[in-house]
Amino acid sequence: MSINTFGHLFRVTTWGESHGPALGATVDGCPPNVPVTEAMLQHWMDMRKPGQNKYTTQRREPDQVRILSGVFEGKTTGTPVQLMIENTDQRSKDYGEIAEKFRPGHADITYWQKYGIRDYRGGGRSSARETAARVAAGGLARAALAVLAPNVQITGYMVQMGPLAIDRSRFDLDEISRNPFWVPDADAAEEWAAYLDGLRKSGSSVGAVVEVVARGLPAGLGAPVYGKLDTDLAAAMMSINAVKGVEIGEGMGAAVLTGEENADEITIGPDGPVFSSNHAGGILGGISTGQDVVVRFAVKPTSSILTPRKTITKSGKDTEIITKGRHDPCVGIRAVPVGEAMMACVLLDHLLLHRGQVGDGGGQIG
Amino acid sequence: MSINTFGHLFRVTTWGESHGPALGATVDGCPPNVPVTEAMLQHWMDMRKPGQNKYTTQRREPDQVRILSGVFEGKTTGTPVQLMIENTDQRSKDYGEIAEKFRPGHADITYWQKYGIRDYRGGGRSSARETAARVAAGGLARAALAVLAPNVQITGYMVQMGPLAIDRSRFDLDEISRNPFWVPDADAAEEWAAYLDGLRKSGSSVGAVVEVVARGLPAGLGAPVYGKLDTDLAAAMMSINAVKGVEIGEGMGAAVLTGEENADEITIGPDGPVFSSNHAGGILGGISTGQDVVVRFAVKPTSSILTPRKTITKSGKDTEIITKGRHDPCVGIRAVPVGEAMMACVLLDHLLLHRGQVGDGGGQIG
Amino acid sequence: MSINTFGHLFRVTTWGESHGPALGATVDGCPPNVPVTEAMLQHWMDMRKPGQNKYTTQRREPDQVRILSGVFEGKTTGTPVQLMIENTDQRSKDYGEIAEKFRPGHADITYWQKYGIRDYRGGGRSSARETAARVAAGGLARAALAVLAPNVQITGYMVQMGPLAIDRSRFDLDEISRNPFWVPDADAAEEWAAYLDGLRKSGSSVGAVVEVVARGLPAGLGAPVYGKLDTDLAAAMMSINAVKGVEIGEGMGAAVLTGEENADEITIGPDGPVFSSNHAGGILGGISTGQDVVVRFAVKPTSSILTPRKTITKSGKDTEIITKGRHDPCVGIRAVPVGEAMMACVLLDHLLLHRGQVGDGGGQIG
Amino acid sequence: MSINTFGHLFRVTTWGESHGPALGATVDGCPPNVPVTEAMLQHWMDMRKPGQNKYTTQRREPDQVRILSGVFEGKTTGTPVQLMIENTDQRSKDYGEIAEKFRPGHADITYWQKYGIRDYRGGGRSSARETAARVAAGGLARAALAVLAPNVQITGYMVQMGPLAIDRSRFDLDEISRNPFWVPDADAAEEWAAYLDGLRKSGSSVGAVVEVVARGLPAGLGAPVYGKLDTDLAAAMMSINAVKGVEIGEGMGAAVLTGEENADEITIGPDGPVFSSNHAGGILGGISTGQDVVVRFAVKPTSSILTPRKTITKSGKDTEIITKGRHDPCVGIRAVPVGEAMMACVLLDHLLLHRGQVGDGGGQIG
Repeated sequence: MSINTFGHLFRVTTWGESHGPALGATVDGCPPNVPVTEAMLQHWMDMRKPGQNKYTTQRREPDQVRILSGVFEGKTTGTPVQLMIENTDQRSKDYGEIAEKFRPGHADITYWQKYGIRDYRGGGRSSARETAARVAAGGLARAALAVLAPNVQITGYMVQMGPLAIDRSRFDLDEISRNPFWVPDADAAEEWAAYLDGLRKSGSSVGAVVEVVARGLPAGLGAPVYGKLDTDLAAAMMSINAVKGVEIGEGMGAAVLTGEENADEITIGPDGPVFSSNHAGGILGGISTGQDVVVRFAVKPTSSILTPRKTITKSGKDTEIITKGRHDPCVGIRAVPVGEAMMACVLLDHLLLHRGQVGDGGGQIG
Repeated sequence: MSINTFGHLFRVTTWGESHGPALGATVDGCPPNVPVTEAMLQHWMDMRKPGQNKYTTQRREPDQVRILSGVFEGKTTGTPVQLMIENTDQRSKDYGEIAEKFRPGHADITYWQKYGIRDYRGGGRSSARETAARVAAGGLARAALAVLAPNVQITGYMVQMGPLAIDRSRFDLDEISRNPFWVPDADAAEEWAAYLDGLRKSGSSVGAVVEVVARGLPAGLGAPVYGKLDTDLAAAMMSINAVKGVEIGEGMGAAVLTGEENADEITIGPDGPVFSSNHAGGILGGISTGQDVVVRFAVKPTSSILTPRKTITKSGKDTEIITKGRHDPCVGIRAVPVGEAMMACVLLDHLLLHRGQVGDGGGQIG
Repeated sequence: MSINTFGHLFRVTTWGESHGPALGATVDGCPPNVPVTEAMLQHWMDMRKPGQNKYTTQRREPDQVRILSGVFEGKTTGTPVQLMIENTDQRSKDYGEIAEKFRPGHADITYWQKYGIRDYRGGGRSSARETAARVAAGGLARAALAVLAPNVQITGYMVQMGPLAIDRSRFDLDEISRNPFWVPDADAAEEWAAYLDGLRKSGSSVGAVVEVVARGLPAGLGAPVYGKLDTDLAAAMMSINAVKGVEIGEGMGAAVLTGEENADEITIGPDGPVFSSNHAGGILGGISTGQDVVVRFAVKPTSSILTPRKTITKSGKDTEIITKGRHDPCVGIRAVPVGEAMMACVLLDHLLLHRGQVGDGGGQIG
Repeated sequence: MSINTFGHLFRVTTWGESHGPALGATVDGCPPNVPVTEAMLQHWMDMRKPGQNKYTTQRREPDQVRILSGVFEGKTTGTPVQLMIENTDQRSKDYGEIAEKFRPGHADITYWQKYGIRDYRGGGRSSARETAARVAAGGLARAALAVLAPNVQITGYMVQMGPLAIDRSRFDLDEISRNPFWVPDADAAEEWAAYLDGLRKSGSSVGAVVEVVARGLPAGLGAPVYGKLDTDLAAAMMSINAVKGVEIGEGMGAAVLTGEENADEITIGPDGPVFSSNHAGGILGGISTGQDVVVRFAVKPTSSILTPRKTITKSGKDTEIITKGRHDPCVGIRAVPVGEAMMACVLLDHLLLHRGQVGDGGGQIG
């Protein structure tokens, strides 16, 4: 088991390498009768697609997703959905040096130590290109959510790039799609552009924090105690390349709160419980409260930089390396649609789990 | 599936409620011929046991673990190991009010919304008492690690309590077991004692950050891309009650690093690769590098406090609640042995997974 | 993973050895709000209990089942249900010889070869005593079915004992509980009694065929193509000790049918499709048709006999063995309630799976 | 979860419909460094390929398998292997009538009742065409077995076609590949040819029994008690289209044996235990003994026949149906390579499981 599958009932297995003929996602357990087309999935693929502006890798991939099974006359049939994306722009010659040297901060060395063989072209399986398959699967999850939980809205955006954070007082949802950074703050967008431009020219890279919010989720989703909604979200986000930290609601900051501060007080409203705050990030005891589900994750800077770093060769010699391939100065940018896709998959999965175990048997208040 | 199981090959299913007759862990997949006794497990149980000092809940449980199966003449047989802990000090009368009111920041409301029924005595299944079963299972995992990877050492400790953080320059491993906070800093221990004493007397509570480190782990463990070592550690830690954030290595702080800073440079040493730093927390591409594996998690303050908080009743009326039961002013303290236990389970699981898929086929350097 | 769990959503993990302190079943994923008591489960336990008549092992176990978790005020809570049965009559001295010699036809040798250690007392984990835990879990599954699919009736019975088969023209459901063989044919019951009495006195044993039928199951259950209803039933029955063959509907006899004979013709009736026959055993393409689900399995004779058989010792010496312990001349008898229990677990599991993936979205006819 | 995955560590997910653009197998958990090429897999595909002689469906598919991922420079990398087979000969016009009428004995009706939608072209997902993906995955499993257990030889053959059974005294392994029925008996091959020719001309069909034997398997494989080797083999075979019964060793015939007859006596030989017989089919207590593993399964006759059968329409009207498409008079023939493929997958899976849990810790004799 090399565990390329995630999900309990909505099960996504991704496959494929950066420079193989194709990659994709085999999705098992999608509910039947969900309207879905390749164009609907392509919408999300295009968000993640490389080469769209100067801030992301210049690899040019159409990232055209094909549905090879599980959909008949525009609807899912309940059988496995195969989503395939062919690789087209594979400049393998760029990667010769990596076959022998390990990039510091990259999976080159560990894949070798683990398997004793690796497809070194463009990172092979460890490449962020794998996330294209996640976005395709996430698109399918969204299509199913549109049927099963039409109020759910999933929105991802950047809240920090290197030392630069957004100003929450200027938070503007509409701004997200207007700038290349998916940042909900027009002023930040300008500032970040200047910062990243400098970074890009110097061949450097920087980390980021992405936040993903799901609105309109019903209460009661989550499967304690090892399939908690936050547990599964933490795993989903941590599985994305380069992610080093995950937070739910208050996150690491919960450590400094007192019990009084942390308690999201409850009053009764016309439509049920109303919470005075959302330190919990919409999840208590692993189960959704009906509030917004709020997840954040930190993405480290890519290790592919132009500054020489000390490293060793496969044969155990000291050397240096610089990476000249086409890479992202801030991979966090392209992680935004990936985070959204993971959120969509996890939420759908828990909707199905809840329906399976509990049906309509949840508790009423009032 | 309510998913009370974790692990791929070393599979732990915990069961039991805070005030039921017993709770425990059903462990499937433990390797055979591992020497283990109840006394060995009890050593770890006693670390987590409540009522040991004035800083933890005054519930007095002997937390005596019994091995009901899977061990014969002092060794595991390869069959399921049942670890049972009987509940003895169950003052159910303390919990009457909670049957009708929901504690803000607690799983009371979500368990009700999910299941339409809950064992409200002492939090039932959502109680931190569930973690006793994890510690028992973790003890078994440690016993197996002692055979399969005898160099592995797992150490947990607190690095932050509310606003008070340790001073890394005073870090002292030996200090950890000398104070009631598992804090590796003697000065901090004193300061924290005063702080927590005040908090306890006022009936308040506070959050914390726990760090768990595994030393001596071989390179090559981890199963990309959805069973990455960091993915599984994130899930394991996030599944612990009250945890809101998980970090690997640099964690959320990775966002502010540049690629130059983040790259742990590599040189060749007498025993293989030597890294100049450990921003990666011992994991690259989801696979262990052979460096220390470093995980941190934030624990929110317990919601059981003496200050009245606004809440609602099951019948939908506004009201207030204070919680008079025996609780922990800083649950983070008792999360330390739990975090260690989860680390032990995840590492053993990945050792077995690696042995199953790869055997001795990993790559050599030099 | 030694895989002591079965089920997808209703997950049953059995644990315990024949002569350990206890054995049981950890059941995860039972729906909440299912009325269940220890007495309800005991009803099924008593069916399987040894020592009830001269035709089954004279080991005397009360087989009292205790519910340790997951049930509150007489109803399931949706959390794991721990079902424990304490072992009381453990005459370990009977089994000394088995520690050194392998019984032909028994798991003694393979457990040793696999694990390099085994609990040899009474067969340890390989003992049919493990099936007590299955019957307890099956009782819980029946309780849930009574809520979710109240029309479902599960009935098991013997159709063959050694060379003696029932006469289907005398089939009488009411007769099943009137004789010690669970045989639906009063004449057969008498004949079998005489036959088995002779066998018992000579210290021999014999095989059997058990049939289990589920009536009243809705159409549409089953998860193609590797979790087909028949696939899961085949696995469930084959996992019972001593089972060597499993048949659905026509079973092995399907080989001699032509397509014309095998086609269960369909006409429309007042309540939907009516089938002219049931060669399919109620399952087409792995999915239930709404007809009776019919499963049969063959149980081999127990290897514990008084006639000496050639065998070897652990140290590799040729020798002979006879088994003097208390054993069943026809273990098939006690397999009847076990087969029913497995059927109940599989059906409930597939009800939950179907509800999770499809909800009310199945197709109507007419 | 529609459960299109099988295996514990060597996990195969098949996808695709009979008349979609492609079908395939996503294989996760294959060990690294296994030499494998498309040509090696094609060898097995060609065995199952339709249209090779007049006794199988006249659909003409090249069944060319492509490796899209997980193999680099002729060796597996330990990452998911995607095996894709494009559909080329899709005469969808043949299947119009099936969209409205249900074929008796076919999954048409149950897929409709389950999902409320189905791809009716050529049976869609329920078509035996799905087994092409299994054969591809089985080819990969064989390649891995060739490295990990080079002595293992897997051989499938027919032992019965309708009323005609082989004569075991004429059993000839070499004959299997010389006739279109994979029958190890030259006289039977001739007799069967005449019989099937008549059946084919009359538009009828007939059932069959297939036997698959694995030689050279080490002792100790199998994971009691719900992942027994025989349990997993039973599930694997029962999951093949049209299979209605599965037998291990003596199978259903075990019912008529006495304990004396059934006990495979053991003596010590130069290379370890020697068994006097193999009623057990190479498996005791779910674990391999080192003897030949022997599995048989019965395949029902295809429901696609030219004789009119009573059925109903989706709108609930009585009608009749004959099936004119291109079909197999005895689908059992093409089930032979499929049974071999399933055997290969299960054995490899259990080799990896055993290596993961036990390593080299199995018990020695002598």
